[in-house]
Amino acid sequence: MASSSEHHHQQRVLNAGVLGATGTVGQRFVVLLAQNPAFRIHALGASERSAGRAYRAAAKWKMSEAMPAAVADMEVRACDPAQFGGCDVVFSGLDASVAGDVERAFFEADFAVFSNAKNYRMDPLVPLCVPVVNTDHYALLAAQRAAKGLRRGFIVTNSNCSTSGLVVPLKALQDRFGPLRRVVVTTLQAISGAGYPGVASLDILDNIVPLISGEEPKMEAEVLKILGGLRADAAGCAPLADLRVSATCNRVPVVDGHTECVSVEFAAPAPPSIDEIKQCLREYTCEAQRLGCPSAPRQAIVVTDDEDRPQPRLDRNAGGGMAVTVGRIRPCPVFHVKFTLLVHNTVLGAAGASILNAEYAARKGYIVAV
Amino acid sequence: MASSSEHHHQQRVLNAGVLGATGTVGQRFVVLLAQNPAFRIHALGASERSAGRAYRAAAKWKMSEAMPAAVADMEVRACDPAQFGGCDVVFSGLDASVAGDVERAFFEADFAVFSNAKNYRMDPLVPLCVPVVNTDHYALLAAQRAAKGLRRGFIVTNSNCSTSGLVVPLKALQDRFGPLRRVVVTTLQAISGAGYPGVASLDILDNIVPLISGEEPKMEAEVLKILGGLRADAAGCAPLADLRVSATCNRVPVVDGHTECVSVEFAAPAPPSIDEIKQCLREYTCEAQRLGCPSAPRQAIVVTDDEDRPQPRLDRNAGGGMAVTVGRIRPCPVFHVKFTLLVHNTVLGAAGASILNAEYAARKGYIVAV
Amino acid sequence: MASSSEHHHQQRVLNAGVLGATGTVGQRFVVLLAQNPAFRIHALGASERSAGRAYRAAAKWKMSEAMPAAVADMEVRACDPAQFGGCDVVFSGLDASVAGDVERAFFEADFAVFSNAKNYRMDPLVPLCVPVVNTDHYALLAAQRAAKGLRRGFIVTNSNCSTSGLVVPLKALQDRFGPLRRVVVTTLQAISGAGYPGVASLDILDNIVPLISGEEPKMEAEVLKILGGLRADAAGCAPLADLRVSATCNRVPVVDGHTECVSVEFAAPAPPSIDEIKQCLREYTCEAQRLGCPSAPRQAIVVTDDEDRPQPRLDRNAGGGMAVTVGRIRPCPVFHVKFTLLVHNTVLGAAGASILNAEYAARKGYIVAV
Amino acid sequence: MASSSEHHHQQRVLNAGVLGATGTVGQRFVVLLAQNPAFRIHALGASERSAGRAYRAAAKWKMSEAMPAAVADMEVRACDPAQFGGCDVVFSGLDASVAGDVERAFFEADFAVFSNAKNYRMDPLVPLCVPVVNTDHYALLAAQRAAKGLRRGFIVTNSNCSTSGLVVPLKALQDRFGPLRRVVVTTLQAISGAGYPGVASLDILDNIVPLISGEEPKMEAEVLKILGGLRADAAGCAPLADLRVSATCNRVPVVDGHTECVSVEFAAPAPPSIDEIKQCLREYTCEAQRLGCPSAPRQAIVVTDDEDRPQPRLDRNAGGGMAVTVGRIRPCPVFHVKFTLLVHNTVLGAAGASILNAEYAARKGYIVAV
Repeated sequence: MASSSEHHHQQRVLNAGVLGATGTVGQRFVVLLAQNPAFRIHALGASERSAGRAYRAAAKWKMSEAMPAAVADMEVRACDPAQFGGCDVVFSGLDASVAGDVERAFFEADFAVFSNAKNYRMDPLVPLCVPVVNTDHYALLAAQRAAKGLRRGFIVTNSNCSTSGLVVPLKALQDRFGPLRRVVVTTLQAISGAGYPGVASLDILDNIVPLISGEEPKMEAEVLKILGGLRADAAGCAPLADLRVSATCNRVPVVDGHTECVSVEFAAPAPPSIDEIKQCLREYTCEAQRLGCPSAPRQAIVVTDDEDRPQPRLDRNAGGGMAVTVGRIRPCPVFHVKFTLLVHNTVLGAAGASILNAEYAARKGYIVAV
Repeated sequence: MASSSEHHHQQRVLNAGVLGATGTVGQRFVVLLAQNPAFRIHALGASERSAGRAYRAAAKWKMSEAMPAAVADMEVRACDPAQFGGCDVVFSGLDASVAGDVERAFFEADFAVFSNAKNYRMDPLVPLCVPVVNTDHYALLAAQRAAKGLRRGFIVTNSNCSTSGLVVPLKALQDRFGPLRRVVVTTLQAISGAGYPGVASLDILDNIVPLISGEEPKMEAEVLKILGGLRADAAGCAPLADLRVSATCNRVPVVDGHTECVSVEFAAPAPPSIDEIKQCLREYTCEAQRLGCPSAPRQAIVVTDDEDRPQPRLDRNAGGGMAVTVGRIRPCPVFHVKFTLLVHNTVLGAAGASILNAEYAARKGYIVAV
Repeated sequence: MASSSEHHHQQRVLNAGVLGATGTVGQRFVVLLAQNPAFRIHALGASERSAGRAYRAAAKWKMSEAMPAAVADMEVRACDPAQFGGCDVVFSGLDASVAGDVERAFFEADFAVFSNAKNYRMDPLVPLCVPVVNTDHYALLAAQRAAKGLRRGFIVTNSNCSTSGLVVPLKALQDRFGPLRRVVVTTLQAISGAGYPGVASLDILDNIVPLISGEEPKMEAEVLKILGGLRADAAGCAPLADLRVSATCNRVPVVDGHTECVSVEFAAPAPPSIDEIKQCLREYTCEAQRLGCPSAPRQAIVVTDDEDRPQPRLDRNAGGGMAVTVGRIRPCPVFHVKFTLLVHNTVLGAAGASILNAEYAARKGYIVAV
Repeated sequence: MASSSEHHHQQRVLNAGVLGATGTVGQRFVVLLAQNPAFRIHALGASERSAGRAYRAAAKWKMSEAMPAAVADMEVRACDPAQFGGCDVVFSGLDASVAGDVERAFFEADFAVFSNAKNYRMDPLVPLCVPVVNTDHYALLAAQRAAKGLRRGFIVTNSNCSTSGLVVPLKALQDRFGPLRRVVVTTLQAISGAGYPGVASLDILDNIVPLISGEEPKMEAEVLKILGGLRADAAGCAPLADLRVSATCNRVPVVDGHTECVSVEFAAPAPPSIDEIKQCLREYTCEAQRLGCPSAPRQAIVVTDDEDRPQPRLDRNAGGGMAVTVGRIRPCPVFHVKFTLLVHNTVLGAAGASILNAEYAARKGYIVAV
């Protein structure tokens, strides 16, 4: 499946399309792609209402970074595969309400689709891939193409933003110390995760919203699929059956960066020491790093010994937003260990994950030239 | 120990002194006492620096409620028992750095002291009393007086602000369904809990601080003492030995109101249903309510079925800040049940608890006329 | 026009209807009316979508105060005069997009309408009345009724929320020191002024929005009408012609309470001293106070000498939200005097003004029994 | 005074010392210098308490950007000239309480000092220099050196953070349209301007503080000096005598970026049109840009036509924080024109200005090799 010559694949700059380019995830795609040496933004797609307008006019820009000059005058297209000719990869920041149909149209038209939407995440033939965790799930693509009759097209999804932060240290622990048995996680999630207009200010100034609709079951299920393996024939996933996850999700008055408080119980009766856990997290590396993908963080997990870290304002940009910062690693009086992690919800938690997924796919030969 | 005539005791308006009256807890004492029919503010104490000045000038007022006219021109005194003559009760909002010595001076001078400070909380002869939970711990006072050679004086403490919210529903569940085995709690705590100047704005605007120094062990220990019983001879506490509590405490950009996400495991193998739990919480009452104490909330636990409640801005004033609001009661995939609660950290979590403790003590005859 | 016996009129509790009762201004009407001895909430009106549902279910409650028990189970009605029989007064918190037609239907059906909407504010026959400033404009009602052929009905409007704070000290200064020539005002306005969902949190967390659409011309025009007089025949307004006002309006991350920084130039060449100005503001009273209207603040203008006041969190509830707090009164290097004021934008700035307008109207005999 | 060969001077990388390196301005110096090709951080100075410790340990890091690796292990020195040997330039982020003595010790020891402190700003022999505005004031340095008997040493100051934003468009307008007569400015200033711990969170969450102690007179005076010229003999400043400025300064819950609402009256009776003003601002350039200083923004003034901009979260990083964004340019009903500007208070408003001042000085030959 993978190319025999990875070096060959990484040379070419790929033409990228962005679906849902005017939304907040779409804007993050645009910011990240504009500074990424592996891609050139080739087409921007949005709703019929935006199609035909200059991106500058169609997008109500909400990023702290300025709109890249290269896209400001690009004409926005409708999200129709016929209008995305020449794109090597297509990134989707579409809302779930439309992502199902539109993304199918694209992969059936033989596009390589990298989606942030939830619609296909739990499909057993679709990799649900946090690129610093389970790129081995790309092995599903052969079966996916066979099942859907695709030659070049496929779809790879990234996880929910909260899931993406949680699975990185859990994967490191599982790889080193064996299966986990129970995880209790409480999140403090940033407002950017809800898009724009998203959370009303009257709901979040001097306030906490203790519910993010649908988020908890998503986290509880996605973790099992991501940390699980594949069937022996690579024709489906084998989610973990013995891990139980309990998630509680809160919205907090923070712009970017999800904080997660995690308690973990190992299956093994004799748990590792706190020092062993710190060392394990610090030493964790992934294949996307080893392949030299440009978006891969130098350090996948930044372990901090400052007892009041991680903090969203200070740590969300660690590794360009692609690293997870883990702190307050200490014994848990109820389980084995507890810690607090921080993940940039629109970078590793959304657009950045899709982009690194695509970089990985390119290097492994999954993206077939048009 | 208790008076044979509770009616007699509740008639008289008590003269109240406030130690640490210029701090944020002290200011809350002043606001609450000024509107409480059972007390008259008689003396305000603060540091030597403030002594001799008008309260209006000495206190940097930070309450949303206006400073009560009755205290604005009162002269602040030093925290010296000799200057508190005529006080029936003394409330302490002192900082822990000075509370130990000052409070001892007051109870040894035979004052009835109700303290919000942590210094004496874990003393086995001192009631650590959340007044809607464990007023039965007042039975320790006889032994306390005997041990310290006091005639009228004593000290009663209230708990840490986070503890106070947590123990109310736990007590209700324990009373109805038997012992609890494990509790995991993650808090999102308001800035007013840190006093003034307290949390720097650079630390909390667009940010979360994942540590509140010393708070987690306090919560983990205080819960066991409060939910536990007394020794058979009422000469000491018998903290719970079989409950394990794991607390993670965060500071969030909220002015007042601590949110707590709680997962609970019962000792019994067959846990109650969600409906039984809701009913249990709604039906919970305490002795302070039955005695008609003015600060006792009509409903000790407000159970909400709105799936996005409780919220600090909307629910912190439930029951005048003396009720705990509990919502999102649902099964926990890891334990038996999880829920989110909200407590007003400076009312039931601090000054309000001390005041209700004093109201209870008065009605039960513990406060001996000067 | 006014009753010969004001005492007679103030006795009866009036039945009140609220139009737009589920919105944020409507919710503030409900909170204020429920605690007002002069009114009984008789009917709640909202959109067709809400009509027929219990208020508890129809209103997405956003007030810090709990929903009054008396209204929770009231059935919401459509905003149709036929459904408001028995109402002595009707308060409108409707959105401007529908207020024009609905309010006309009500006053033409002979209801006494008190509106917070902007639609009729600049009509020369409609009092634009900040009740602590210009109740003398009620004299327009005779001409209004004559022009519209109404017997009992009429409409009185209150001003934009920012205007309401500004005109109070300006009126006091104008009354004492003669005409003003130039006013430059910059506002820092709370999010509650924009309703719900209103301002998106991504627009206001760690941010300022330097525009409130349409607000500046509204302020600049309303001030002239309110501070102006009436035509000699009371058949129209005579807005000030010689005052120039320049307003700049900003949205800031504050829940309630508009802050306004004001520079004033008097027409007289020799301006009053700072002490004279303070005294003038402190001594200002209005007719609604003299009549004993329950919502009238004891002190219309609270002058503070604390150099870091007023502050929204600390001062917005002064006088139950019906007083304006003025501080930092000092010479202006460009004009004569500058100061900072604070007004509760949904109380004196909206619902509270309408209610005090109605209290005044009742005492003056404008409200004719059904 | 200036070197005959500017090209020569710009080649060498200069060794930089930072005084007050652990404070918030000092941390901004460190972040900016670490990414600046013209400087190498050579020495970090702080209080005696920090001296001898690693910078990583001594500085309580509060920047969103990670601490540069190159400084983390540098040993902090006392602010003693003897310990700064080898430094070509010394930047001061010292607090005003110590800056007077320390900075004098450094320039008297013949160091080139660039200070953000207020102590020497109004000294007639010291350039108060916003580097995109009035680098012509460097002509004072000859007289300064002569007066103080310095060979290589001197001191150049930058302005107060609010002043720095205001003078940029004012300078552009004055250069093009002639003298200004009156300016009224109201600021909404970010918390980072107050340092750490600085503003208490209880003072600013859901709140505005309408006072920044000492700020208004500073702004009102500094503008006159900066926009003014020099005496004919370059031996002193000639502040503007005919411009009157009225400043009102507020603290708002924003992390970085000061917003300023400005009304301007020209001396000329026929003011320019709005379009002429926009064009003037867009075309404004300064000598630091023409010399190719690395920190000079490509565009000194970014004029936005979006009617709801500038906004701090979106615009503070324009030009790397060295540009001023101006929007809402419109007629003022009281003066001639009003607009809203945004300046990054710790970049152009503090550390960035000092650094660009030093770049300019280097290119003009004012910095004499050690």
